[in-house]
Amino acid sequence: MSPTSDDGLKIFRDAQSGFRWAGVDRLNYKEEGSAPFKSISRQVLFSGPGLAGELRYFKIEPGGFSTLERHEHVHAVMILHGRGTCLVREMVRAVETYDLVTIAPWSWHQFRATGGEALGFLCLVNAERDRPQLPNADDLTALRAIPGVAEFLDGK
Amino acid sequence: MSPTSDDGLKIFRDAQSGFRWAGVDRLNYKEEGSAPFKSISRQVLFSGPGLAGELRYFKIEPGGFSTLERHEHVHAVMILHGRGTCLVREMVRAVETYDLVTIAPWSWHQFRATGGEALGFLCLVNAERDRPQLPNADDLTALRAIPGVAEFLDGK
Repeated sequence: MSPTSDDGLKIFRDAQSGFRWAGVDRLNYKEEGSAPFKSISRQVLFSGPGLAGELRYFKIEPGGFSTLERHEHVHAVMILHGRGTCLVREMVRAVETYDLVTIAPWSWHQFRATGGEALGFLCLVNAERDRPQLPNADDLTALRAIPGVAEFLDGK
Repeated sequence: MSPTSDDGLKIFRDAQSGFRWAGVDRLNYKEEGSAPFKSISRQVLFSGPGLAGELRYFKIEPGGFSTLERHEHVHAVMILHGRGTCLVREMVRAVETYDLVTIAPWSWHQFRATGGEALGFLCLVNAERDRPQLPNADDLTALRAIPGVAEFLDGK
């Protein structure tokens, strides 16, 4: 049994193998069918009470990807393990362990585990935040016209 | 040159060797003489604009320790590398890579790199937070009376 504080917070939650944690559920990334994504899971490591931010861990299996989306809230990302590629705004960039990525408001973004291994990252967000927007056909056309972006979106 | 977003945020900050990051200053943990600590440095990885939380990285060299203190704001800690020991409230506990520690309001806490290697951890806090309090003589007497705590505080 892990000691708990008076308000029910677990003080100590041990790391387990495979980037799991005691008492932390592995969740669906999003509701199936709500948006395009592949082979990605979510674990909420820290979330209220008393915290204005939330820290989540996402694991993308090889070949998988997060949803291409944008929103007003900021994403503050640290790659925790592995390597892959990400799109932020109009930039496609290789990322590897411990790299930092700051996703400013309304930046289109997506992470892909293109390195032949799982890509795990931490993502800090505000506890209060807006819902993501998906690209419409015009957004996708504009994005795909940027050099390198169509290849990224097609997983090549 | 790292691409920057319109508001001057650096989007991509690459990890360097030894837990340093491009464009991130290694800071003094606290002002020298302001509180007891030893062999610990601080890097602010993510901090506003648009973020209600801040993510900091602390590195404690072997034998070093953070300040024994408490405050109203919550600390949400992930051990990023190495191993050591921490005190939270009345509990002394070994910690190792990827373990999670939640430090509730007004919990006395201290981290020590007791494992013969550096101990690095991420700490999420609210951007707006109160200043830490140091223990007075009575607090220290009460803490040291708890089994195991005097040995911890003496680095044994």
